[in-house]
Amino acid sequence: MKAAVCQINSIIGDIEGNKKKILEYYLKGVSDGVDIVVTPELSLTGYTPLDLVEKEEFRQAVYSAASDLASSTNSTTALLFGSISEFQDNIGTNLFNSALFCINGKIDKVIHKTLIPNYDVFDEVRYFESAKETFLVDFKGEKLGISICEDIWNDEDYWKKRLYPNDPVKQQIDMGATFLINISASPYSYGKRKNRFKMLTALTKEDGIPLIYTCCVGAQTELIFDGVSFCFNADSSLAKKGAAFKEDYFVFDSGIGIKENGSIELSFPEEIHDALILGISDYTKKTGFKKALIGLSGGVDSALITYLAVKALGNENVHTVLMPSEFSSEGSIVDSIKLAKNLGVSYETVPITPVFNTIKESLSNSFGDEDPGLAEENIQSRIRGLFLMALSNKFGYLLLTTGNKSELATGYATLYGDMAGALAPIGDVYKTGVYQICEYINRNGEIIPEEILTKAPSAELRPNQTDQDSLPPYNFLDEVLKLYLEENKELKEIALLLGNFNTVKEILNLVDKNEFKRRQAAPVLRISNKAFGYGRRFPVVQKWRRK
Amino acid sequence: MKAAVCQINSIIGDIEGNKKKILEYYLKGVSDGVDIVVTPELSLTGYTPLDLVEKEEFRQAVYSAASDLASSTNSTTALLFGSISEFQDNIGTNLFNSALFCINGKIDKVIHKTLIPNYDVFDEVRYFESAKETFLVDFKGEKLGISICEDIWNDEDYWKKRLYPNDPVKQQIDMGATFLINISASPYSYGKRKNRFKMLTALTKEDGIPLIYTCCVGAQTELIFDGVSFCFNADSSLAKKGAAFKEDYFVFDSGIGIKENGSIELSFPEEIHDALILGISDYTKKTGFKKALIGLSGGVDSALITYLAVKALGNENVHTVLMPSEFSSEGSIVDSIKLAKNLGVSYETVPITPVFNTIKESLSNSFGDEDPGLAEENIQSRIRGLFLMALSNKFGYLLLTTGNKSELATGYATLYGDMAGALAPIGDVYKTGVYQICEYINRNGEIIPEEILTKAPSAELRPNQTDQDSLPPYNFLDEVLKLYLEENKELKEIALLLGNFNTVKEILNLVDKNEFKRRQAAPVLRISNKAFGYGRRFPVVQKWRRK
Repeated sequence: MKAAVCQINSIIGDIEGNKKKILEYYLKGVSDGVDIVVTPELSLTGYTPLDLVEKEEFRQAVYSAASDLASSTNSTTALLFGSISEFQDNIGTNLFNSALFCINGKIDKVIHKTLIPNYDVFDEVRYFESAKETFLVDFKGEKLGISICEDIWNDEDYWKKRLYPNDPVKQQIDMGATFLINISASPYSYGKRKNRFKMLTALTKEDGIPLIYTCCVGAQTELIFDGVSFCFNADSSLAKKGAAFKEDYFVFDSGIGIKENGSIELSFPEEIHDALILGISDYTKKTGFKKALIGLSGGVDSALITYLAVKALGNENVHTVLMPSEFSSEGSIVDSIKLAKNLGVSYETVPITPVFNTIKESLSNSFGDEDPGLAEENIQSRIRGLFLMALSNKFGYLLLTTGNKSELATGYATLYGDMAGALAPIGDVYKTGVYQICEYINRNGEIIPEEILTKAPSAELRPNQTDQDSLPPYNFLDEVLKLYLEENKELKEIALLLGNFNTVKEILNLVDKNEFKRRQAAPVLRISNKAFGYGRRFPVVQKWRRK
Repeated sequence: MKAAVCQINSIIGDIEGNKKKILEYYLKGVSDGVDIVVTPELSLTGYTPLDLVEKEEFRQAVYSAASDLASSTNSTTALLFGSISEFQDNIGTNLFNSALFCINGKIDKVIHKTLIPNYDVFDEVRYFESAKETFLVDFKGEKLGISICEDIWNDEDYWKKRLYPNDPVKQQIDMGATFLINISASPYSYGKRKNRFKMLTALTKEDGIPLIYTCCVGAQTELIFDGVSFCFNADSSLAKKGAAFKEDYFVFDSGIGIKENGSIELSFPEEIHDALILGISDYTKKTGFKKALIGLSGGVDSALITYLAVKALGNENVHTVLMPSEFSSEGSIVDSIKLAKNLGVSYETVPITPVFNTIKESLSNSFGDEDPGLAEENIQSRIRGLFLMALSNKFGYLLLTTGNKSELATGYATLYGDMAGALAPIGDVYKTGVYQICEYINRNGEIIPEEILTKAPSAELRPNQTDQDSLPPYNFLDEVLKLYLEENKELKEIALLLGNFNTVKEILNLVDKNEFKRRQAAPVLRISNKAFGYGRRFPVVQKWRRK
């Protein structure tokens, strides 16, 4: 069996565009003489269309495009693509997440997803029914076991703890499948690719059947898809591997037995570097923006984001603004200018002091004799947010917000101030991770000025302020946050591992108390197994606190 | 059977507080000599705890409190309350949404929810497994059919279209239930109570079995629960009805056959008036705030919210700010002051012109010769947002944001400007609905100044601006939005009903394009079957547009 694996980057809702792309790849597969052309899960709608599928006109447009695609198939090369499909009866949503097997001008078979994920960022039970039957597709002497994403993630022999009682892929194997194809849309998080590879290797080793795992690529708002589709030979060796973080097309011939080498996953900073560039690039381009805007504080977060934006959009499309105040150190200005020059991006300087003074005057009656405090600090941050949004509105820049995961977690950020922006590229990267990525960027010489990497982090909203006046040291904080957020550990467990019971308690309560800020935060590019935003759902008003 | 129905207002996560409340009501029931005391769904955790249930320490605290409650029961009065419960095996979440039947110091029976809702604001499949068995509880000669919320909403005879294939309440009736108890947490939307009453009446008429339907009350962030628990006699007549929008406790004796009269649901403005007051009050109090802050524009939205805040918190706890600009009409100032005086709330005036001028100066190099436009309009809105947040930060006010549903739908609002605030009390009320509620408020004389109700709506961000420069007339706009958002109709259907194909198309595309603003909006109090926020999920980046 000769298959073309198309690791495509769909745009959600762009049915015509996605159809065109699928068709182009199909025709490429035809000209390469393959037996089947495979595209990822829901590649016709983009993953995930969410409530769009509840719109009748949207569904009809999808079905019409699916039918167009089927009509374009010839009698020798099949097309297998992901789409929604529908069956009307009087119970349930009547919608399925399906793989459409097309040949000879028709939709020949429709395979529905059986295991419907509904955890973390997945809401599929909201939309999709589970397949009512499992079957094989006879094609050119092979018995194809076709499945969709989650269907292949429930192997009883592999997982100690499973989410579902049934295993549709095992059923297909038991029914005599000779070739497995899984079409997938599996959101990226660091470490997941290795798990996926390990799991799929175990599966093919156990069953001795060739496997194609086709994954989509691209970013959809906060979710990043990394591609790296896998093809396994019958002996469970890896035959082919798709590119990471970009579209790819390749042909896999199950008869040949080529073996692919090379590492499955790079180091954390290398991977995240590439993931975030794709995330910024796709958000910007898919929303029709060309240029990005970043406020430069002289700190490491805005430095990293400027670098990533340059990689994503080109230095000519990145503009930066310095907004010094009376509390800004000389270094923060000099370092920011050095960064802008190193990266070749334009910059301008708009001091906030005149506006800050006018605001204090305007509010002087209201504020009376109250000592300056948090309110005044937030005012400065909000003037900067206002300046940036004004430039964004005036010139059509996409504003990138610079908050990292440590800040979002602890609420060490100002709503409508430094939290302003369309996208939070490093909102899922801890402060310590930000440094790691910067060091990776500087591996062959200084790009991000060393001064930025070595000075103590500070919001510079009052004299001689540093982050560590308000927060525990980042090394400790990030360890606690990681255990709490990503490993779902609790106070006692974390304190047992790291000590400092009271500090750990304060951190956890701080995270819980600041849900109201995160509810209004910009979408966060997800690179861990638990990012703030769509996949983490807490009530804003709740009183669970540790004592 | 004599039952005490406790329509309580839990606080999510406040396990000790909720436990105390349940216990107090239990003891009241004991002293009233009832057979059973019933509290709503998940009343021990508050509904809905969301991802809190994924925390081991949280669950353990719940189980410990549940066990305390059970130990407090005597041998004659049972306690039935809602809680999570857990059963460890190696498949699925192992968690259940349960009713705990306690008697004689013990948890005697645990009834799990069978039908797990996962649409609109419901995410229960994310957390809960479905009950694996249905059974009755023998108690004092009765066979109790105990069910949880959604379990009673799937009657094949009543619904043309059902969500689930099975009907646990019908199963209980078929097994010989003599008394039905449903514990519920059913989020309020206008019209739902009537539906609920009609559905439950049909059920009891069909089956001739007394029914207790216990509903919680109170607001949990954006969700409002309206109470109005129902008790039905065996002849399907209504025996008792709980209070609307407040805690209530009453005793239902199934042997007596008392009948209750009175309307089930009041008019739209009356109901929404009460619902929003509860929503504001609970958000404020449950988060520990005492005082609210509102920016007065002279328009109808801020007038209504000020009135509602006064009803929720008392006039001494509501502070208002006028922030006139060079484009503010004389009327907007005079009318705002009149409103503040009518309502007896404090007000202050902080003109934005000096700050606006300083900002324009600061940005003059950047803006160059560009004509003033949207950027300058947004700057004014953001100065107001900044002033309000500064006062909120300085004095601990909860800032209420004044946007209505028509504005949120069309994006006729400024991110970080008039959208700033902790809660959007009328974010689910269309502009036309805002007027209806104001007229209801003024039914016995002017409270909201007539001038505010009669002038043309305007953002006053440029000379002689009115909303209708940018938007279709509100009467038409709101009709379109209602059909689109709440009835899930699409372009062709709406245009067929209302005409104006092109305007309808523009409106629908405007709604879809502005998802990025709503993603960063404050939580919206939900009073319709489809509010912006948690229950409506669209990708920010998507290209589905109507042509």
